[in-house]
Amino acid sequence: MTANEIAGAFQSLQQEIIEGLELAEGGKKFHFDHWERPEGGGGRSAVLSQGAILEKGGVNFSAVEGPLHPNVAKSLGVEAHHFFATGVSIVLHPHNPLVPIIHMNVRYFETEGGMYWFGGGIDLTPHYIKEEQAVFFHGKLKETCDRFDPHFYPRFKAWADDYFYIKHREETRGIGGIFFDRLNEKETGYTKSHLQEFVFAVGRTFLPIYTHFMKELASLPFTEAQKQWQLIRRGRYVEFNLVYDRGTRFGLDTGGRIESILMSLPALASWEYNHIPSPNSEEAKTLSLLRKGIDWISE
Amino acid sequence: MTANEIAGAFQSLQQEIIEGLELAEGGKKFHFDHWERPEGGGGRSAVLSQGAILEKGGVNFSAVEGPLHPNVAKSLGVEAHHFFATGVSIVLHPHNPLVPIIHMNVRYFETEGGMYWFGGGIDLTPHYIKEEQAVFFHGKLKETCDRFDPHFYPRFKAWADDYFYIKHREETRGIGGIFFDRLNEKETGYTKSHLQEFVFAVGRTFLPIYTHFMKELASLPFTEAQKQWQLIRRGRYVEFNLVYDRGTRFGLDTGGRIESILMSLPALASWEYNHIPSPNSEEAKTLSLLRKGIDWISE
Repeated sequence: MTANEIAGAFQSLQQEIIEGLELAEGGKKFHFDHWERPEGGGGRSAVLSQGAILEKGGVNFSAVEGPLHPNVAKSLGVEAHHFFATGVSIVLHPHNPLVPIIHMNVRYFETEGGMYWFGGGIDLTPHYIKEEQAVFFHGKLKETCDRFDPHFYPRFKAWADDYFYIKHREETRGIGGIFFDRLNEKETGYTKSHLQEFVFAVGRTFLPIYTHFMKELASLPFTEAQKQWQLIRRGRYVEFNLVYDRGTRFGLDTGGRIESILMSLPALASWEYNHIPSPNSEEAKTLSLLRKGIDWISE
Repeated sequence: MTANEIAGAFQSLQQEIIEGLELAEGGKKFHFDHWERPEGGGGRSAVLSQGAILEKGGVNFSAVEGPLHPNVAKSLGVEAHHFFATGVSIVLHPHNPLVPIIHMNVRYFETEGGMYWFGGGIDLTPHYIKEEQAVFFHGKLKETCDRFDPHFYPRFKAWADDYFYIKHREETRGIGGIFFDRLNEKETGYTKSHLQEFVFAVGRTFLPIYTHFMKELASLPFTEAQKQWQLIRRGRYVEFNLVYDRGTRFGLDTGGRIESILMSLPALASWEYNHIPSPNSEEAKTLSLLRKGIDWISE
């Protein structure tokens, strides 16, 4: 597939996910914004706000190209003057604190001269960590990975643990998932078409996972205290995205479309000074599980 | 004054400000946390939460010392192995959207071998910018500055415009104020005791300014829509503090006391996708004034 064909396939994936989420929402529709980038390319942002289940959700597609800044080329270790980048990015914040926040990204990057790579991942941030949800989530990711290489899941699971980490809190963002970057033939030994199939398989794993959680959890009753805890967990999500997330930082530094980059931030978040949950509470249990290296699906 | 005497004077300043704010609050008291730093020194954090006027406010004092990391020494251009740093930091978030957010910091830094500097500033972030408030605020800062050097106010006002700038939004955080850093005899030509008096004069300018706003504005009626706008402006405050503020970034990177560093974040903040105020609204007027170089008190 050419870069343009990959972009086209990402655009179809975006559309498929939007339709699936609208179906699960049962009425509320996404709002679309088409935007163009002065240097080349553009995208389509899709945001759903105050739905039945989702308080705020964004499903972005972009395909941008243009001159590669010499500093960026250097940091990438390439000698090229032109790049093409395309992908789909999703963050969903539900109303109900018993439904997890989810993030997905799949992306493709290439420069003139044949240099390319794929990246992406899916990770889950439950406000309340429940083992059975973690087992289901990681199980689905492992299933997808295993169809391409038995080493992918353990490697990309560990990578997600390292990446989605809020260093100053010594907490993972949630229960992780998979994360991978700069995958190409040289790095993996697989053909470009195998890697491409893998990345699209990851993209297609997203919808059944999250609509499962929407169906199972969105109508559970919750308390005001659980809602307050959700706002505090969302504050941590904001901290991760603004302080550490490479995509966000890169976008802010390079003048990307701010509203598309920051659609990942929640409608409402809270910071309470020195909030410490009561011992043995569900909140304390969740905090105790926000760490790297938990093997959710050991057989 | 020795470093310890300066720290003692900062501690008294903290106490003076806490008492003044409690008086203006009319009942609600600050909660104190004493903390120690394993490498040396510590501080006293004071947080007021859900007061009559303040929704969340922190007044922190710290005096820390210890080995100077070679990288830090290099970036500071000093050849020293030990540092001492002390100061007071304040951020106040009021309930009423018609009352501005305020930030103040005064600080002193020294290393072995006699290298030292003072830094600090005060800046105001009104949710709704009103010219008469800006004139009052900048007038008070200019009065204080002018007692020490007629060039201080214009220089430190421009410095604040540059520093309190949310680059990715192309917005200033608020109406600025004054900001200065690394002031010492070499840089300014003034004696250490003159600079120290200046920094403490800045510290003592804070309370009369903010209690004036508390008295004048806190009982004004406001609407739900104004409250919603306040939450969006607080979102911008979070963006500035987590993405740009040097003190915050330095604290997060070097393992400072997280809860003291992040006490600057509001109890509640909001991000709404692509929020654009109606033309000619008070909100649109405020946005139009969030830019550098406005001379609020030209005669």
